[in-house]
Amino acid sequence: MLETRIVDRIRKLAEDGPHNKQIITAIGDDCAILRPRVGEDLVFTTDFVLEGRHFTLDTHTAADIGHKALARSLSDLAAMGAEPVFCLVGLGIPAALGSSWINQFYKGLLKLANRLSITVAGGDLARFEKVITEVMCCGRVKRGKAILRSGAKPGHAIYVTGKLGGPAHTRWRRPLRPEPRIQAGLALRRLRVSSGMDLSDGLALDLHRLCLESKVSADLRSPLPVARGASLEDALHGGEDYELLFTAPTRARIPAAIDHVPITCIGVIKSGPPGSLRLDGRLLQPKGFDHFR
Amino acid sequence: MLETRIVDRIRKLAEDGPHNKQIITAIGDDCAILRPRVGEDLVFTTDFVLEGRHFTLDTHTAADIGHKALARSLSDLAAMGAEPVFCLVGLGIPAALGSSWINQFYKGLLKLANRLSITVAGGDLARFEKVITEVMCCGRVKRGKAILRSGAKPGHAIYVTGKLGGPAHTRWRRPLRPEPRIQAGLALRRLRVSSGMDLSDGLALDLHRLCLESKVSADLRSPLPVARGASLEDALHGGEDYELLFTAPTRARIPAAIDHVPITCIGVIKSGPPGSLRLDGRLLQPKGFDHFR
Repeated sequence: MLETRIVDRIRKLAEDGPHNKQIITAIGDDCAILRPRVGEDLVFTTDFVLEGRHFTLDTHTAADIGHKALARSLSDLAAMGAEPVFCLVGLGIPAALGSSWINQFYKGLLKLANRLSITVAGGDLARFEKVITEVMCCGRVKRGKAILRSGAKPGHAIYVTGKLGGPAHTRWRRPLRPEPRIQAGLALRRLRVSSGMDLSDGLALDLHRLCLESKVSADLRSPLPVARGASLEDALHGGEDYELLFTAPTRARIPAAIDHVPITCIGVIKSGPPGSLRLDGRLLQPKGFDHFR
Repeated sequence: MLETRIVDRIRKLAEDGPHNKQIITAIGDDCAILRPRVGEDLVFTTDFVLEGRHFTLDTHTAADIGHKALARSLSDLAAMGAEPVFCLVGLGIPAALGSSWINQFYKGLLKLANRLSITVAGGDLARFEKVITEVMCCGRVKRGKAILRSGAKPGHAIYVTGKLGGPAHTRWRRPLRPEPRIQAGLALRRLRVSSGMDLSDGLALDLHRLCLESKVSADLRSPLPVARGASLEDALHGGEDYELLFTAPTRARIPAAIDHVPITCIGVIKSGPPGSLRLDGRLLQPKGFDHFR
C-alpha cells in the first residue's frame, strides 16, 4: 500500500477523533496550524517509545504500543498541570508490518486520545528496521500557572500519586497501558502545588532532578507507597511509573485521592546540598533508570 | 557518562544558542513553555531523520546529521511561510557513540539553529541500536496567513525554487547539508502566493499531493530546472530536494530569485481530474519517493 493511501486512512481515523477548535489545519499540509488563545501558555514535550527499550512485539500489541506512545508524552503534560490540545505522531515500522498493523497502532493511540480529548494533528511515517515512535504533545495552561520542577522550597511536603515500582517489578508484562495522570495534574494546579514532575525513571533519580532544579534536598520517610508485589528497590529505582511527584506548602490542602488515584505524603524538602536525598535519615543514591549508565 | 550530565551539556550548548523571547521555560523541565502572541498562528511539524534511510555513519559526520535533522523540519516551516520559533530534538544513539558524538551532533544542529534563529527548547535522548532523530519545529505566521497546499486555482502559475534532482543524483554524497528555504518562504508569504509545499519526495509526487489538496490538476512544461549532472528522472522522481514548490495568480509579481535562490515557472494549474499531472502534454505518473511502495 502506498504512503499516500496509508496517510489518507490515518487522516480519516484522526478526523473521527477529538477536534480541538484551536487546531485550524491538521493532517494534510506541511505543518499543523494552531490559533493560540489570549491568557494561556502552551507547553510542549516529545518522547520516544522504542522497540526493545519500552516494548517488544511479543508482549505488546500494535494498539498497546499506540497507547503507550501517546501516554508517555501525555504524562509530561500532566506533570505541568496542562490540558491536552494536540499531538504529532512519528511512527517508523518494518516492511513486515502492514497497513493493518498501522491501523491498530492508531486505534490504540486514538482510544486514549478520545478519552483525554487530544487532537492528532499530524506526524511522520517512515520505514525502519524496528518499530520506533516519537510523540510530541502540546497542552495549554493558564498564563504563568504551569507546575514547574523549580518551585520546591524547604519545609514543603513531598507527595506522589498512586503506587510505585509495579512496572519495574512486572517488566514488559503489566501495565501494558499506563494511564497518564491528566485529571490529577489539573487538580494539583488548582491546588497551587509548588513543584512537580512525572515519574519515568524511578522516584530516586526523578526526585534528585526535581531537587537540582529547585536547589534543595529531600528527606523521604518510610513507608513509601509500593505497588503490590514490587520491592522498595523497584519503587525507588525502577522506571516507567508515570505517576506524579510533587511538593506543596504544608498549608495546602492536598486530598487523600484525586480521580480515584491515592496520594501519599512521602517526605519533606530540606535546604541541604542541592539534589541530595535521604531515606529515613540515610543517604540515598539517585541511581534509577539511566539510559546512558 | 550519565544521562543527567549529558543533558546538562546539551542544555549549556542550547542556552548559548538563540533565545526566542516567547519561550519562557526550555530544557530542564517536563515540558517547554511558550507564551503565544496575539494575532499570530503557530505552525508545527515533526520529521524523522534515520540511519540507513536519510544518512549513513560513513557518509555523514555527527554534525552533518545534526544539521540535516533540523533542516528537514525547518523546510516544512519554510513551506508555510513561517518564521522559526523553537524546536524539540529527539535523538537515539548506539552505545558505541559517546558523549563527544552527541556534542558534535548538537554543534551541527545549533550552527543551523543560530543562523535561522530557532531556540532548542527540549527533546528526548535514548539509547538505540541505530542513530535515529526526530525534530519537531514550531514557527509563527501572521494570523490566517500561512501558505497552504489547498489554495491553488486553475490558471495559477506553478513555480519552484532552486534546481531539482541533485540529491537524488548524488545520493548520500552531496549536499550533506541541505539549506531550508526559510527566507524564500517568508518572501513568498508577503507576495501572497496561492499555495505551497516543500519538495521532499520528488516534484511529481509532491505536486500530485498539492493538486489533491487543491482539487486541481497540473500541466508542467519543459525545460524543468534540473541540477547539474542530474537527469529529468532525478528531478521528477528523486527525493530530498528541500526546495519550495508554489503557485501564484498570474498577476502576482514573482521575482527571478529570492535570497540568491533562482525561481522558475514550470507550468500552470488546470481544472482537470484532482491530482493528475501532465508534462508537455503527456500524462505523468506521480511515482516519486514513496517509503511504503
